[in-house]
Amino acid sequence: MIKTDILIIGAGPTGLFTVFEAGLLKLRCHLIDALPQPGGQCAEIYPKKPIYDIPAFPEVLAGDLVDNLMKQIEPFQPGFTLGERAETIDKDEDGQFIVTTNKGTQHKAPVIAIAGGLGSFEPRKPPIANIADFEDKGVEYVIRDPEVYRNKNVVIAGGGDSALDWSIFLTDVAASVTLIHRRNEFRGALDSVEKVQELKDAGKIKLITPAEVIGLKGDGHISGVTVKRSGEEFDLECDHFVPLFGLAPKLGPMANWGLEIEKNAIKVDNSLDYQTNIPGIYAIGDINTYPGKLKLILCGFHEATLMCQSAYQRIHPGKRYVMKYTTVGGVEGFDGSKKEAPKAVVKAIN
Amino acid sequence: MIKTDILIIGAGPTGLFTVFEAGLLKLRCHLIDALPQPGGQCAEIYPKKPIYDIPAFPEVLAGDLVDNLMKQIEPFQPGFTLGERAETIDKDEDGQFIVTTNKGTQHKAPVIAIAGGLGSFEPRKPPIANIADFEDKGVEYVIRDPEVYRNKNVVIAGGGDSALDWSIFLTDVAASVTLIHRRNEFRGALDSVEKVQELKDAGKIKLITPAEVIGLKGDGHISGVTVKRSGEEFDLECDHFVPLFGLAPKLGPMANWGLEIEKNAIKVDNSLDYQTNIPGIYAIGDINTYPGKLKLILCGFHEATLMCQSAYQRIHPGKRYVMKYTTVGGVEGFDGSKKEAPKAVVKAIN
Ligand SMILES: Cc1cc2nc3c(=O)[nH]c(=O)nc-3n(C[C@H](O)[C@H](O)[C@H](O)COP(=O)(O)OP(=O)(O)OC[C@H]3O[C@@H](n4cnc5c(N)ncnc54)[C@H](O)[C@@H]3O)c2cc1C
Ligand SMILES: Cc1cc2nc3c(=O)[nH]c(=O)nc-3n(C[C@H](O)[C@H](O)[C@H](O)COP(=O)(O)OP(=O)(O)OC[C@H]3O[C@@H](n4cnc5c(N)ncnc54)[C@H](O)[C@@H]3O)c2cc1C
Repeated sequence: MIKTDILIIGAGPTGLFTVFEAGLLKLRCHLIDALPQPGGQCAEIYPKKPIYDIPAFPEVLAGDLVDNLMKQIEPFQPGFTLGERAETIDKDEDGQFIVTTNKGTQHKAPVIAIAGGLGSFEPRKPPIANIADFEDKGVEYVIRDPEVYRNKNVVIAGGGDSALDWSIFLTDVAASVTLIHRRNEFRGALDSVEKVQELKDAGKIKLITPAEVIGLKGDGHISGVTVKRSGEEFDLECDHFVPLFGLAPKLGPMANWGLEIEKNAIKVDNSLDYQTNIPGIYAIGDINTYPGKLKLILCGFHEATLMCQSAYQRIHPGKRYVMKYTTVGGVEGFDGSKKEAPKAVVKAIN
Repeated sequence: MIKTDILIIGAGPTGLFTVFEAGLLKLRCHLIDALPQPGGQCAEIYPKKPIYDIPAFPEVLAGDLVDNLMKQIEPFQPGFTLGERAETIDKDEDGQFIVTTNKGTQHKAPVIAIAGGLGSFEPRKPPIANIADFEDKGVEYVIRDPEVYRNKNVVIAGGGDSALDWSIFLTDVAASVTLIHRRNEFRGALDSVEKVQELKDAGKIKLITPAEVIGLKGDGHISGVTVKRSGEEFDLECDHFVPLFGLAPKLGPMANWGLEIEKNAIKVDNSLDYQTNIPGIYAIGDINTYPGKLKLILCGFHEATLMCQSAYQRIHPGKRYVMKYTTVGGVEGFDGSKKEAPKAVVKAIN
């Protein structure tokens, strides 16, 4: 059982910044995310694209924004349960919440911050009859650890940035890379498309287009795929089949947690602290809704900050907290680190 | 008469970022500030100190934060009325607001955003009987344009960072610099104190401590000061006397604008759009108050953003605005500039 002060569901920009604001209040955080990496939409959908409306960044790549947030929260040593979806939420006898993931990991905390964005990202699966039989047995919808593919024969399907970029990356790792797409045209960053063309010309990526994988073979573990190209069918041996057809967010299990839902989002009290209808459960960032709500990153930051103050009162009832500016009070990490502005000196001039 | 869409009173971080959010909505802004430079508290009180809680900046100097904001809003060509205090606010026959400064400059706009922080910064004045007679006639409480002091004899009074830093700076400009402080000890950044010691040793700054200026002489324009040191009084010729005893924020004229005031701040409706009790006048950043309010920079950014959406509805009643992410829609400046994320290509691989 993982125990913490604030359990954050969703490690997007909002969830990450919550760790910082909680840390200033000496509260510890643990984050759960269905994706294998932190950063939410920024990391998963558009890491290489610039954002222009983060205050005081005339321009910042979404991936760099996430890196900066990770660096900012480092002193507060957050815990992570990645690649797992928060599935159920229960109340313990002592009034604390227990959150269990789809893989059975249990977490306990007096306060829950749902920073679930548009929902947990679930892969779009190709309609192949027996695909479920091979999940985690050679079929992966998301690449978590590239080392899994070392010296293996890998078939990737898809026509977007993920399919292009992972095909490129795996040429240095896998024994062979085959990229299958149902059109000749790919849609992605120009340099990715050009790089795949180059690797194909050099014989390092085998390209099969326009084509589709229509069947999977294997005994326990996958051993090959059946491909259909212009009416013709043929088999291809492989150790892994990775269909990268994108991820779609699903409110999913959260819809069953007894929370008030409106417009596919969780209703909160924005006039105070972004609390949901269940005391002790807050919802911040893209996942929440209130009059005038904007699904912007900078709004998630503000909501997280106010929410942490309320969480502090819940966790330490009656204790008075006097806010100090970081410039004045510095930042004391749980790791013993201390950041501090240089102090003024009082010194005679003779 | 200066006309604009949103007239912003206060050019601190909140006021500055408002220009950006308004610009995305194609609304133009003009800012008024009592200080001679933009940046509010960050620029005036602690430009060289680090802030640690600006999201995605593990550390940023307050002065750099202001520079970044200025750069971010540049495409939206804000107007500035600096060094003037907004004094009165009236309603025109056409329902628009007229704001007049202490120097008589008039501004007209359908929407007012008060981003006045802790109030307008007013200098702390030394208790010298006839000082008012010499204001702007050789007595200045804030240095606006250092060129005014070229080849002049300048007496500076004070013992903090401003007195130290301006004494250092003016040695290269003025004919002579005399620094007077009522103690031997100065309070400031270590390198500033050391630099003044150095310049004093080199004969470039004349230091008189512990001493006070107790009288001013001159006919029309100042021609000298009377100094008192350990009981002894003497006169000193000079062209300028600059007492730098710090600035104190004063709610000042804003207290008389018919706005609901609570805890020295302006009450707003935080459940919607940060509007005050007067429709069309919003209050954002440190100047406002609502349940759970935190006087933090990141909160001002959020408030500015939501406020601009409401202002848009006011200025374009009934017009539907569909928000586009900056990453997707880019940023189109009023200066003809356009920032845009590189677009994905659709391209065949053969
Ligand atoms: C193409 C694009 C461009 C954009 N451009 C901008 C822009 O310019 N400016 C801007 O401000 N915003 C922009 N956005 C929106 C911005 O990315 C979101 O506002 C932001 O990511 C919201 O952050 P969040 O942390 O609230 O949620 P998210 O980033 O969505 O993160 C939520 C995380 O929660 C996880 N999660 C959800 N439910 C569960 C569960 N049950 N168990 C485990 N994990 C779960 C998800 O997997 C996800 O990782 C853009 C979005 C897109 C897609
Ligand atoms: C030493 C110190 C350290 C700080 N550290 C942090 C920190 O670590 N993190 C953080 O988030 N915040 C910090 N703050 C607070 C932060 O600086 C403020 O929250 C922020 O400056 C508020 O921005 P603002 O734009 O709302 O107001 P301000 O920065 O106060 O700007 C308001 C401006 O309005 C002008 N004005 C007011 N009335 C009038 C008028 N009638 N006419 C013309 N002009 C007018 C003023 O002159 C001023 O320039 C710190 C503050 C100080 C003093």
